[in-house]
Amino acid sequence: MNFASDNVHGIHPKVLKALSDCNEGAMGSYGADPVTARAEAAYREILGAPDAVVRFAATGTGANALVCAQLSPSFGRIYCHDSAHIHRDECAAPEFYSHGAKLVPLPGADGKFTPETLAEAIRFGKAGSLNDGRNAMVSITNATEWGTVYDPAEVAALARIAHEAGLPLHMDGARFANAVAGLGVDAADLTVRAGVDALCFGGTKNGAMAAEAVVFFDPARAEGFDYRRKQAGQVWSKQRYLAAQMLALATDGLWLDLARHANAMSARLAQGIVQAGGDLVVPVQANEVFARLPSEAHVRARGHGAAYHIWQDQPPVGDEPVTVRLVTSWATHEDDVGRLLELMRG
Amino acid sequence: MNFASDNVHGIHPKVLKALSDCNEGAMGSYGADPVTARAEAAYREILGAPDAVVRFAATGTGANALVCAQLSPSFGRIYCHDSAHIHRDECAAPEFYSHGAKLVPLPGADGKFTPETLAEAIRFGKAGSLNDGRNAMVSITNATEWGTVYDPAEVAALARIAHEAGLPLHMDGARFANAVAGLGVDAADLTVRAGVDALCFGGTKNGAMAAEAVVFFDPARAEGFDYRRKQAGQVWSKQRYLAAQMLALATDGLWLDLARHANAMSARLAQGIVQAGGDLVVPVQANEVFARLPSEAHVRARGHGAAYHIWQDQPPVGDEPVTVRLVTSWATHEDDVGRLLELMRG
Amino acid sequence: MNFASDNVHGIHPKVLKALSDCNEGAMGSYGADPVTARAEAAYREILGAPDAVVRFAATGTGANALVCAQLSPSFGRIYCHDSAHIHRDECAAPEFYSHGAKLVPLPGADGKFTPETLAEAIRFGKAGSLNDGRNAMVSITNATEWGTVYDPAEVAALARIAHEAGLPLHMDGARFANAVAGLGVDAADLTVRAGVDALCFGGTKNGAMAAEAVVFFDPARAEGFDYRRKQAGQVWSKQRYLAAQMLALATDGLWLDLARHANAMSARLAQGIVQAGGDLVVPVQANEVFARLPSEAHVRARGHGAAYHIWQDQPPVGDEPVTVRLVTSWATHEDDVGRLLELMRG
Amino acid sequence: MNFASDNVHGIHPKVLKALSDCNEGAMGSYGADPVTARAEAAYREILGAPDAVVRFAATGTGANALVCAQLSPSFGRIYCHDSAHIHRDECAAPEFYSHGAKLVPLPGADGKFTPETLAEAIRFGKAGSLNDGRNAMVSITNATEWGTVYDPAEVAALARIAHEAGLPLHMDGARFANAVAGLGVDAADLTVRAGVDALCFGGTKNGAMAAEAVVFFDPARAEGFDYRRKQAGQVWSKQRYLAAQMLALATDGLWLDLARHANAMSARLAQGIVQAGGDLVVPVQANEVFARLPSEAHVRARGHGAAYHIWQDQPPVGDEPVTVRLVTSWATHEDDVGRLLELMRG
Repeated sequence: MNFASDNVHGIHPKVLKALSDCNEGAMGSYGADPVTARAEAAYREILGAPDAVVRFAATGTGANALVCAQLSPSFGRIYCHDSAHIHRDECAAPEFYSHGAKLVPLPGADGKFTPETLAEAIRFGKAGSLNDGRNAMVSITNATEWGTVYDPAEVAALARIAHEAGLPLHMDGARFANAVAGLGVDAADLTVRAGVDALCFGGTKNGAMAAEAVVFFDPARAEGFDYRRKQAGQVWSKQRYLAAQMLALATDGLWLDLARHANAMSARLAQGIVQAGGDLVVPVQANEVFARLPSEAHVRARGHGAAYHIWQDQPPVGDEPVTVRLVTSWATHEDDVGRLLELMRG
Repeated sequence: MNFASDNVHGIHPKVLKALSDCNEGAMGSYGADPVTARAEAAYREILGAPDAVVRFAATGTGANALVCAQLSPSFGRIYCHDSAHIHRDECAAPEFYSHGAKLVPLPGADGKFTPETLAEAIRFGKAGSLNDGRNAMVSITNATEWGTVYDPAEVAALARIAHEAGLPLHMDGARFANAVAGLGVDAADLTVRAGVDALCFGGTKNGAMAAEAVVFFDPARAEGFDYRRKQAGQVWSKQRYLAAQMLALATDGLWLDLARHANAMSARLAQGIVQAGGDLVVPVQANEVFARLPSEAHVRARGHGAAYHIWQDQPPVGDEPVTVRLVTSWATHEDDVGRLLELMRG
Repeated sequence: MNFASDNVHGIHPKVLKALSDCNEGAMGSYGADPVTARAEAAYREILGAPDAVVRFAATGTGANALVCAQLSPSFGRIYCHDSAHIHRDECAAPEFYSHGAKLVPLPGADGKFTPETLAEAIRFGKAGSLNDGRNAMVSITNATEWGTVYDPAEVAALARIAHEAGLPLHMDGARFANAVAGLGVDAADLTVRAGVDALCFGGTKNGAMAAEAVVFFDPARAEGFDYRRKQAGQVWSKQRYLAAQMLALATDGLWLDLARHANAMSARLAQGIVQAGGDLVVPVQANEVFARLPSEAHVRARGHGAAYHIWQDQPPVGDEPVTVRLVTSWATHEDDVGRLLELMRG
Repeated sequence: MNFASDNVHGIHPKVLKALSDCNEGAMGSYGADPVTARAEAAYREILGAPDAVVRFAATGTGANALVCAQLSPSFGRIYCHDSAHIHRDECAAPEFYSHGAKLVPLPGADGKFTPETLAEAIRFGKAGSLNDGRNAMVSITNATEWGTVYDPAEVAALARIAHEAGLPLHMDGARFANAVAGLGVDAADLTVRAGVDALCFGGTKNGAMAAEAVVFFDPARAEGFDYRRKQAGQVWSKQRYLAAQMLALATDGLWLDLARHANAMSARLAQGIVQAGGDLVVPVQANEVFARLPSEAHVRARGHGAAYHIWQDQPPVGDEPVTVRLVTSWATHEDDVGRLLELMRG
């Protein structure tokens, strides 16, 4: 019963098998191998973007920080939501990789900011002096840190604002598969057709070991990126194993199947929590549930070993409801969900 | 018949198996898992260093660059051999991670520099003004880029010079196992007892997928390192799979067995090349052979598909001997060596 | 009638004279000259800190960014007020110099944050994971960006919180002289005796051309600083002229006289504005006045060429009061103040 | 009798006067002032480059490092002479500002490298893998660190090689005036017409206090530069005083007169040294003399207080000749030269 994060679980068997399947024989190193070529092609196809540059990295922090450094100069302003992983959870990797870019956090309900909020922030940055730095890029997370999603129209509206100001739009898709599954849309509709310029397409949380795809829809934006990735120590010499993971996820829609399962588990959790007297803090649209649990439900669940994070600044007091985060994944068992809900109901 | 590099080969079956062996169930992320704990302990034991701080990274460039950033300020001078990987082959990752440290290349035969050369360079740096930057650290590669080794006494002599100047000694051990195997010494004798302060203990070239251990023998030198590694995007959320690779290599001396095999293959290659009329450019002490091949031997070998690098600045001319580099690994088959030598002999 | 900033005015005649007074003959470069030695000594004396390391830099941004890089690693959290110059107005120079340190803005009335606010932020940072970065330093501005001041007791209370967490306290004193003058305290009481660890003692705004002193009260904190400053291109080869400016300000209390004049002008402005029907947004404690002016007063003043900044996010609407910032300096003429107030009174 | 460097001397009286001449009244800060506008125009005119972007910085290290960061990505290779100031004497400022660019030192007699040497280095860099980084820019120093000069044809030949490879050419002109004076050519012929893309036009060594001009002949290359300079803490708030120095030098050809004087002093020194039994290490073409002095001449000169640098790695031995560097400047008195030569002649 571990709902602490989607990264506490292991590797999907098909991904694991892909590692051994490509283990025979010598192959070119640093990406000059057929597995990498096939994996890159697979993501161009998934994304309906035959010209896109696709590269792989082992960590989400590495992938995001590389994109920030690629799209923003050291004196750039990077607009993101106040809860964004790049702003809150990457130990200032984007600042480090970009050598100083300023992350400008934007407010907004449910982990999302509106076009109006973005437009105003960009206006402010543009009106500013040298003191303020220069508008450089916009980053959104989809699914968001709060398990909500931007739909294609919402992405397009933000892209329009960004592009009018000459800024590229980055999507941190650590849980991109969950967003696509939650929305039931085409991956291309949520990205390239909506105006996304760079995408980090997460593999790790979705069943890989350590693998993310970095996608630049316009190859011109990827200029020099291979050197940047190399200098950052993010290129494996035995690159085939990085690519094989992503290729396995891309094959026969595995990435989407796994995300659908995780989302379904979250939906069930959410429904059960409400039935157990809890209430949801934000809508459940992907694979995360943020909920206020009745105190006794929380105590019972924790008492029986359920793992999840308390999501409030102050420790729980008395028998007040407790705000928690529960994350499901490809590996979440229906039985565990059932058992957790049972405990909560008492 | 691929002798291009030790990174063109795959993962050793036991390492691969270790990945699936640890795949069950939920575990703490970012290193808070039992596999990581066991793997760290295993390297402390191999190195006879119960207090050492051991951390894992996926790439050698990442590992080396992190150590440089940890041990040198941005204005530091890092002394290394002119052929050092950190100076020649990492796309300036050490400069990037350390934000400007100056790699000062030292000359020396066979990929090694002498204590005298080091002492003089350090004296020069110390006598210098602010213009020159400040002496910060010394880095040696063992086995070297030329497949030669520093023995414990040689390491100790360099460590003494470094320490007298207050500088830590780093060993880039991308092929550390091959050095230990080649010398037939204890890993501790070649490192902590010889005065090494930080070691990058390579796993990838030795049969892992993507794994290196970074070791600080004095925990004080590791202060803040976990944040540094995180900020660099070098921490896997599913860290167990990084650790499991290194643990597999550490178990039952696998790391040493694999290195011994690779070294034996190189020794055999070297012997055969000499018999075929070639000569060795440097002594063969680990898993690399640098040799001048008779032109026809080279042409025959390449003609039959043998893969290896030409190792001279200018393209081969006429029927002059050709200088080449041949690298063996855990996966090199005796038969391939035999066949290559046969081709060379004509 | 220019109240736009204290940096729109020129150099005080005595500072200018100091430049020509030290112009004779050859002197050691890069600070190896007697003027620099005397100037450093003068600031140690003013600050009652005989062991302090004093260095000069030409710009406030350079001085602040150097201190941030000196006291924070790349993965550090730097706590400052939300309005702090290092956070809002230096084009991310602290992030650039420190290679990624995260500025964590704190709320607080009148440009100041309270010990409670600081303590809570530090607790949060300490409780965090690697994701959050590591607590590194605290920075306050005195006088603040809002022209208010922290008195010695307030500084000491913040220093106590910082030191309990092992963090050094930096004071951005671009308008330090104005704070000292406004409080009528001893410079040492406001800094070293109150627990300040590093001070940027501003010269430029106070009548110099381009000169700030960077002071580390504990020499251990200045370790390597001379290299850092050199690498940043902040050392003049003809350093005497940088030092001479600061020496002139230090001589016979000129720095304090000039600040007193600037403060007196602001006090008079403030009083007059209130009499003219305006009101003050924050208390006037140094050389800045933030006030809401009656619309007609603003229109008349601007109409007659008075220069000052409108200090509200939106442009003024109709005849609503207008929030403005007025800054006085050593060069502000009493007559200009009088004339401005006359215009405002109509 | 100080020949240690051209930066041991003071400010030329006309430059000093320019500081007080622009001291009256309030002016826009950060460069929004008429002095800056006039100074920028003056250098565009001197350089025959009406479209060039001209900006000022206080230090040569700052100016050079800013240009490197502007023209090279962090993963770039910057080709320069092995003796180049950016490589040897700036405490790795270019690496710091550019976040890791690799300075690739080229050999060459008399402080200069040839087009052939450059072409080969560029070919090597281009043929390289990601490991080597990417060719980014070429930097030459004129006058060189050895007091020699590249003439317009030599510059053009190097520019051609650089441009053919798509690389911009930077000229570090810390002693640019001395080069122009020594060659007797037009400043435009030595720069923009010869293919130079970015020039650091030194003021400090030539009689200013602390001032250099950074010139980008193609405005497109200056894109974002103002932010970069701001973020580096290299913009003065009272910018007029930075500009006024450069404007004074530009007025009525003062920059050239001062350089001619310095060069004439060096020529006389060189002639006298040869007459005194010394010999020149390199041709004297600007304001530096590198010479081997008879031991007794050196002992006598030093014994009477002459200041200059010994320019050999090892301390002088017995009565062997001593290699020295003598630098003249705008402030070098004929009498001092005469007296030094007298001492040398004995």
